[in-house]
Amino acid sequence: MSDNKIWFKSDYQEGACPDILKRFTETMYEPLSGYGTDIYCASAEEKIRKACECGNARVKFISGGTQTNQLVISTVLKSYQGVVAAVTGHVSAHEAGAIEYSGHKVLTLPSHDGKIDAGELKTLLETFWNDDSYEHMVYPGMVYVSQPTELGTLYRKCELEAISVVCREYNIPLYLDGARLSYALMSDESDLTLPDIARICDVFYIGGTKVGALCGEAVVFTKDNMPEEFVPRIKQRGALMAKGWVLGLQFDTLFTDDLYFKLGRHAIEMANLLKKGMVEKGIKLHADSPTNQQFVVLPNDVRDKLAEDVVFENWEKLPTGETVVRFVTSWATKRENVEKLISLL
Amino acid sequence: MSDNKIWFKSDYQEGACPDILKRFTETMYEPLSGYGTDIYCASAEEKIRKACECGNARVKFISGGTQTNQLVISTVLKSYQGVVAAVTGHVSAHEAGAIEYSGHKVLTLPSHDGKIDAGELKTLLETFWNDDSYEHMVYPGMVYVSQPTELGTLYRKCELEAISVVCREYNIPLYLDGARLSYALMSDESDLTLPDIARICDVFYIGGTKVGALCGEAVVFTKDNMPEEFVPRIKQRGALMAKGWVLGLQFDTLFTDDLYFKLGRHAIEMANLLKKGMVEKGIKLHADSPTNQQFVVLPNDVRDKLAEDVVFENWEKLPTGETVVRFVTSWATKRENVEKLISLL
Amino acid sequence: MSDNKIWFKSDYQEGACPDILKRFTETMYEPLSGYGTDIYCASAEEKIRKACECGNARVKFISGGTQTNQLVISTVLKSYQGVVAAVTGHVSAHEAGAIEYSGHKVLTLPSHDGKIDAGELKTLLETFWNDDSYEHMVYPGMVYVSQPTELGTLYRKCELEAISVVCREYNIPLYLDGARLSYALMSDESDLTLPDIARICDVFYIGGTKVGALCGEAVVFTKDNMPEEFVPRIKQRGALMAKGWVLGLQFDTLFTDDLYFKLGRHAIEMANLLKKGMVEKGIKLHADSPTNQQFVVLPNDVRDKLAEDVVFENWEKLPTGETVVRFVTSWATKRENVEKLISLL
Amino acid sequence: MSDNKIWFKSDYQEGACPDILKRFTETMYEPLSGYGTDIYCASAEEKIRKACECGNARVKFISGGTQTNQLVISTVLKSYQGVVAAVTGHVSAHEAGAIEYSGHKVLTLPSHDGKIDAGELKTLLETFWNDDSYEHMVYPGMVYVSQPTELGTLYRKCELEAISVVCREYNIPLYLDGARLSYALMSDESDLTLPDIARICDVFYIGGTKVGALCGEAVVFTKDNMPEEFVPRIKQRGALMAKGWVLGLQFDTLFTDDLYFKLGRHAIEMANLLKKGMVEKGIKLHADSPTNQQFVVLPNDVRDKLAEDVVFENWEKLPTGETVVRFVTSWATKRENVEKLISLL
Repeated sequence: MSDNKIWFKSDYQEGACPDILKRFTETMYEPLSGYGTDIYCASAEEKIRKACECGNARVKFISGGTQTNQLVISTVLKSYQGVVAAVTGHVSAHEAGAIEYSGHKVLTLPSHDGKIDAGELKTLLETFWNDDSYEHMVYPGMVYVSQPTELGTLYRKCELEAISVVCREYNIPLYLDGARLSYALMSDESDLTLPDIARICDVFYIGGTKVGALCGEAVVFTKDNMPEEFVPRIKQRGALMAKGWVLGLQFDTLFTDDLYFKLGRHAIEMANLLKKGMVEKGIKLHADSPTNQQFVVLPNDVRDKLAEDVVFENWEKLPTGETVVRFVTSWATKRENVEKLISLL
Repeated sequence: MSDNKIWFKSDYQEGACPDILKRFTETMYEPLSGYGTDIYCASAEEKIRKACECGNARVKFISGGTQTNQLVISTVLKSYQGVVAAVTGHVSAHEAGAIEYSGHKVLTLPSHDGKIDAGELKTLLETFWNDDSYEHMVYPGMVYVSQPTELGTLYRKCELEAISVVCREYNIPLYLDGARLSYALMSDESDLTLPDIARICDVFYIGGTKVGALCGEAVVFTKDNMPEEFVPRIKQRGALMAKGWVLGLQFDTLFTDDLYFKLGRHAIEMANLLKKGMVEKGIKLHADSPTNQQFVVLPNDVRDKLAEDVVFENWEKLPTGETVVRFVTSWATKRENVEKLISLL
Repeated sequence: MSDNKIWFKSDYQEGACPDILKRFTETMYEPLSGYGTDIYCASAEEKIRKACECGNARVKFISGGTQTNQLVISTVLKSYQGVVAAVTGHVSAHEAGAIEYSGHKVLTLPSHDGKIDAGELKTLLETFWNDDSYEHMVYPGMVYVSQPTELGTLYRKCELEAISVVCREYNIPLYLDGARLSYALMSDESDLTLPDIARICDVFYIGGTKVGALCGEAVVFTKDNMPEEFVPRIKQRGALMAKGWVLGLQFDTLFTDDLYFKLGRHAIEMANLLKKGMVEKGIKLHADSPTNQQFVVLPNDVRDKLAEDVVFENWEKLPTGETVVRFVTSWATKRENVEKLISLL
Repeated sequence: MSDNKIWFKSDYQEGACPDILKRFTETMYEPLSGYGTDIYCASAEEKIRKACECGNARVKFISGGTQTNQLVISTVLKSYQGVVAAVTGHVSAHEAGAIEYSGHKVLTLPSHDGKIDAGELKTLLETFWNDDSYEHMVYPGMVYVSQPTELGTLYRKCELEAISVVCREYNIPLYLDGARLSYALMSDESDLTLPDIARICDVFYIGGTKVGALCGEAVVFTKDNMPEEFVPRIKQRGALMAKGWVLGLQFDTLFTDDLYFKLGRHAIEMANLLKKGMVEKGIKLHADSPTNQQFVVLPNDVRDKLAEDVVFENWEKLPTGETVVRFVTSWATKRENVEKLISLL
């Protein structure tokens, strides 16, 4: 952009990280087989298996997050089932009805700072199965959580395990949306590792688009549970890339030398720096986010003034004449820009 | 790949062309707004408008061909309509039922070397509307053609115009799948220009994946006819990329200094060279293709021997003990490899 | 049933009323054209137009309620839109996801005794259109209400008009589910007539299944707004009956000599009798329903004892050791059975 | 109808047969539980099991034929599969795209007088599984046949068994559409019994609408293969009737004292009489149909003259200045009308 503003608008505002572009350049003329049958997809799958400590995991690469959610949910659910999610969940609120477009209902639970509660989940499931007319209702067939949540918060290990226990009791899979997974795993407050997630969840995805890739998410089925004939199902939804290795190569790079985690850690450090600076300046935090999304409350005049120099997102208008705004750091955030933002506040 | 074979397997076997990778590197840290609202998508749209000589065209960028076909067909058709296509059309045969997944039938016409015939199209439409029980049948609501066709052949201008006349008579749009459009436009036998196509068709797409991009197709609505609220429709189908500029930047590059056409011309020259060499060697052509896909008939033992050194696609087994094989050139094909292939044959 | 219990289980527990069966017998050998093109469908449509005082209304007959809701909602909505309904609405809760199966989300509002509030509807619509990222959300495209509601309550005329005003302001249609419409219109507390409903709503249906027909609902489009090519859309959803006149003949009968209203009035009188008797006996009403569904609270032992002689529905288990049960009257309810039920309580 | 024409237009032009109407009258005030859980559905299921000599068959009642086809096909197929049918099959041609609306492709085979050929079916399946890119195509997941066919012809036992052998070899179910099944079973040329059909097919339906019922088809799963949670699947498609016993009672009647077969036999006798009369008059048969649909070729002036007294269907315009017309007999056809038609010809 030609203007000189500094941007904290999103974690998908910048391009691919240098290592990924380097690999693209190196392999430019290397012929590869199509539709994800190439060596880089295979290599990336193997590396992800190792990082997950899950030797029989199956990994598929999809170009974007909504597409991944739509694909996973609509292929794992039976046709008469719906997916349980927080009202604030991405699949509930911000995917333009992609889940319903695939024929399935999103059954909502209250959001507790973006998280669902295992007890409330259990009540929902009990109530359904105790209802005499459950055959006239949508069967809860899967649970969706996101880590970090859409509000930047984190599930603790005990919380996620409690949800998992309920899922197993009712024999439905637990699906974790990891669009920003690196920013969760690298948070100072995280007590969950990638192997923990692979162990606790039945399927999850490792987000690339928001963590340094041009595009791409890695879906991981951890319990020998990839839907049969998955390739035609992907194709049928328009989600099978001809140059599948474009995704595979990027994840192969991200899972070499811990790059995925290093990129995430950088974003967390920048977010911590920003948060500390804001707290010191007395800026009111809207939520106490330990990840790369920081939500703060600004008086509207302060916000308007700041917007002359900084690009950020207006999250929610408050009746108080204030606005909740969101600042997002990423693998690409420069320290000098964080410092400049703090000084501007 | 570590082996030393030469590859003529597809036009999506190599990566992105150097100019595109250069642009990615240059813009790596440039913050951009998401979901296709950035400056590069806008610039690419404007350049495509100019190249099409269609000032009010609307252009959207989608990551792959099947997704594009599914999106365009399912948003342009009314729910009770189907799309008319050749039995050999990609949407009929090779998209794993993506059109039907979106709720629409593909109504087939015979293939004449991959092409439909305007007269047969007219008969189909007449027959439908003359049927007393047409309300119990799928309404033909759109016509799909591909240029070049799946068999490498080309519509002549008069053929495409004849189809267009029928479409207008019955008030249904004509949609052209240009997954390999550059290889059609640059063929020695083409009498159709990009502005011709924009004028004759109601909507078409310019393929990037097979012409030097990492991924991406540019959908062009030429008659002020982009479906209303197109962005949520794209999102709902999982086809809205967060980093929309990944596609926009590539098309901006392809439509700078005629790169899109130069890449296509190179592939055609390589195909011509290959074809000439094969004809001179007495290889039997399966079809007389003027584009970058060459289909030839090889005795099975010759084919097996060749496969030791060359990667290509087996297209069709003939009852004669021969096989139709496909050799494909692309923007990335090296002259030395063409010569080597000829010498091996 | 061979047992001697008395039944208050539902208003679809008995067969067709005598007048309808008489018409079936009279017309048994009369040849008629299929798929709703017969004289009885035409006659019924005309009679409904008159009863609605809506000369240009278009009426179509569908076999059941869920099918009607699915058909109307999925043909009136655009593909990127959802329907707004109370959380207790039939389409939200008890149709096994039929709306989502057709690709559309149900956007829920709180239930106020089964009703939505015009103010909350307006807030929902304002909030949507004021959201910067509304293109990533499901567009509210229609409002669904039921009269009487699933809880037996009624919209007052002013309430329905207030909802209609909001709908018109946002240019979205108002759809009324009248599965039990006669029982609303004939309630002592109703201030809405059939012409009122036709005037206020854009589309509604007049329920037959629960008001004396074997099956059948009459969909009424009141504003020259029947979706184009509606017959193939009905067929495509499997909802076009070959013997369409089976439905038309029944509605022709129901709208002759005010039969539809007389049947409804009978049920209301029986419900009033029952309610009065229960109140006199000190039975606790769960809701003060002015229609044919009566919800009362019974201690579990009373309920168990009653169930030896009466068939009714357990509606909701209360944490108090009581159960909300539902007694339903209909066109077929006998006074002696109401008296017996009261005496048993 | 007020005119005095005689009707041979269809086998759904008249109402329900007297026995069925009698049962409706007898049970008018009998309270019954909803959604197919009543005693008549249970009794009808048991009688059909016996008639099929298939003790573990599961039977469900659906209101119409297209709805039944849509339901069975979309619940039995996996999402990536399509159904194989003759191009003339009802699901291919005359259901307004109901199968595609449910997301599935109809894969067509040539029609041999309305029938598919076991050898051609085998070739289709072999070709699919031998194709290197079968994952990009629609999987053949089910075979659809109709008996009698849409052209009034019949599968011989050996033909149906040959198709079944191929199905079992490829492990896909065989589905038979019996909209007019009685008219097949009772044909002089039939060598298939109802138990044969139950044995050979995996699922089929026994048509009621065209054989004396007001509406209704009985779906029979013969191999312990009813899709799990079938009731919510029916409901979700809008196909679960509240008064399910309306269908059950009719089939209970049809399968008492062989009524279903007697009704069919009457129609066949009337068709035989008509055919004999026409042949004697030298009328040209378009197809040699042994069932209740007779297709003959009439010069256009003869047809126009006949249409003054007889209602029939114009089937196909021939380039010769003749028209193929269809005369249909049914359970309700009167001998005197057949004789009158012959005399008029």
